[in-house]
Amino acid sequence: MNLDEFLISPEQSARQRGPLDRIVMSSRTRLARNLAGMPFPGWAKKADRQRALELIQPAVENLPEMAEHFSAPMDALSSMEKQLLVERHLISREHAAKNAGSGLVLNKAETISVMINEEDHLRMQALAPGLQIRRTWELIDHVDSELEERLPYAFNPRLGYLTACPTNVGTGIRVSAMLHLPGLVFTEHMGKIIEAVSQLGLAVRGLYGEGTDASGNIFQVSNQITLGESETRIIGRLEKALHQIIEEEENARAVLWERNPKMLLNHIGRAFGILSNAHTISSKEAMNLLSLMRLGVDFGLFPDADSGLVNELFLLIQPAHLQKHVAGALTPEERDIIRADLLRNRLAHVSRPLSQPPPKDDTQGK
Amino acid sequence: MNLDEFLISPEQSARQRGPLDRIVMSSRTRLARNLAGMPFPGWAKKADRQRALELIQPAVENLPEMAEHFSAPMDALSSMEKQLLVERHLISREHAAKNAGSGLVLNKAETISVMINEEDHLRMQALAPGLQIRRTWELIDHVDSELEERLPYAFNPRLGYLTACPTNVGTGIRVSAMLHLPGLVFTEHMGKIIEAVSQLGLAVRGLYGEGTDASGNIFQVSNQITLGESETRIIGRLEKALHQIIEEEENARAVLWERNPKMLLNHIGRAFGILSNAHTISSKEAMNLLSLMRLGVDFGLFPDADSGLVNELFLLIQPAHLQKHVAGALTPEERDIIRADLLRNRLAHVSRPLSQPPPKDDTQGK
Repeated sequence: MNLDEFLISPEQSARQRGPLDRIVMSSRTRLARNLAGMPFPGWAKKADRQRALELIQPAVENLPEMAEHFSAPMDALSSMEKQLLVERHLISREHAAKNAGSGLVLNKAETISVMINEEDHLRMQALAPGLQIRRTWELIDHVDSELEERLPYAFNPRLGYLTACPTNVGTGIRVSAMLHLPGLVFTEHMGKIIEAVSQLGLAVRGLYGEGTDASGNIFQVSNQITLGESETRIIGRLEKALHQIIEEEENARAVLWERNPKMLLNHIGRAFGILSNAHTISSKEAMNLLSLMRLGVDFGLFPDADSGLVNELFLLIQPAHLQKHVAGALTPEERDIIRADLLRNRLAHVSRPLSQPPPKDDTQGK
Repeated sequence: MNLDEFLISPEQSARQRGPLDRIVMSSRTRLARNLAGMPFPGWAKKADRQRALELIQPAVENLPEMAEHFSAPMDALSSMEKQLLVERHLISREHAAKNAGSGLVLNKAETISVMINEEDHLRMQALAPGLQIRRTWELIDHVDSELEERLPYAFNPRLGYLTACPTNVGTGIRVSAMLHLPGLVFTEHMGKIIEAVSQLGLAVRGLYGEGTDASGNIFQVSNQITLGESETRIIGRLEKALHQIIEEEENARAVLWERNPKMLLNHIGRAFGILSNAHTISSKEAMNLLSLMRLGVDFGLFPDADSGLVNELFLLIQPAHLQKHVAGALTPEERDIIRADLLRNRLAHVSRPLSQPPPKDDTQGK
């Protein structure tokens, strides 16, 4: 089956709701696993990688969770399809660079994705909207248990699961949440937060993980340590930190609104004005302006727009989604024009933001 | 009579139409005259200035053109009233700094304004919308002839009219037009134009005359030389240059549209987006964005806005007009907020600009 036909629509994908999704855009748990007696993908010869792929792929496809699935070797995917998967956070940027000997199995709901021969033989992840770390852990833990019955995992009784990179040894778990933190950015508290979070053994990264920047004020917070702690303790620690960050973000927003509402209204208004009237706009500028619009939505300033619309636009303006939208490859200049056309179009019937938020109980604490 | 009650509304003032007002915002002729046997205002003692004022003021008030007039010594005007008159181009910034011993007589239509004891005893000017240099000259020439019958002018048969500054000696005339030249600015041709214009003995200045910058892409073009040429030759030369600049501006706009319509649409769209959604905006930014909106109006991109609205906004966002609007003195920060409020308010029912101009014959050549 064609990937295009398989993927759910950007609208459907972006409009899923979850707990605390005012700030937490999505939650994810991924596990790193390897097959016993086989070299790690980075060290393996082509034939070894191929053998691992042939072992793992059918095992994953046959899981009950993957009843309806998309499954393909990475060389069967075009670079645009790979980029599309990256933009949906279904594969890593590293996996998008893989070709023959690597593979992907994806379930229909796009909640479970298994990368084969990324850095490890198996990188399986579960995704969910809002703050649902525990749910994604349960989902992927179940997948992992089933796979463990079918595949010979590389496991050391003292160290735990063995992985290509020592930072993943042990549980092989990485739990993360994607947070929208404009309040902390505007009050210039992000530095402090990043420092505090690091001291808890957690990491803060940009939108597409390691080494990417936080355009749109979107940050990924995840555990750093995989060894010497149980999965539930790791999850518990992350959840605790996330609740603290959420509280800090809500406080920052309240402070901003209280101290200088005109400044906020000005930024939000201008952002909407530009998004709904530009004829060329870069991905980075659009992300940052959409972040402001999302903040406006959270403040209740857009009576006829919701965060689902903004999430959808966040997704649609990414390069591959944009090219899928116009069904063709584009130069960066053309992309900037098409992106602006799409934004103007989608925002044509959205009224200009209010100058006053509605009474607090309608917008807060949801 | 109170100045506030006397002045026509900003709307009425800004919505007057004239020939070629797509580019020429207004035309002006001013004459410098002095009384014989009396020291120039800059050299005069207080008593001499007072005597000159007492001689001139009633003579001006009694002219048939000034049947309904506002007349006041400059010390009777508040600094806000003076600034209001500067923003209407009815007095110079220099005259606004004058107090006791200087005066102003203004006709009801705001087409004739006589400054008493500015740099010269008499600085009389006629104003008209669009390109009407010759008409403003005829108007003020008639006022001058009538005054010459009533007042003893300082006149030298060899030099002509004597003035405080030698650059005005002779005819004492300065003819000028206020031009909106965004096309020449964007195509970076203004430097070339300024150079060519200087070689014709003409000067290019900013919105409020000598030493002011061209915010809003508005430039004042005027004669430099007042001596050795008749008034009609001076006017003829300026008119010829103005027609050339107008043609260059129209060409620049056509070139911009042809070469990169997306760039133009982008600038115009963003300008409108910001003007209609900002919550704080400086005078300079607002002028520059209104210039883009006016360009959009000229291209026919705003089906429900006209250049009169933009001209009115150009006027209303000036500091004194803004303070008159809210009836109170404001700090610069408050002004930026009130200015943004006013713009959002006035643009609330203006639709977003079109992405395509209507067929050419509707918008061109008018």
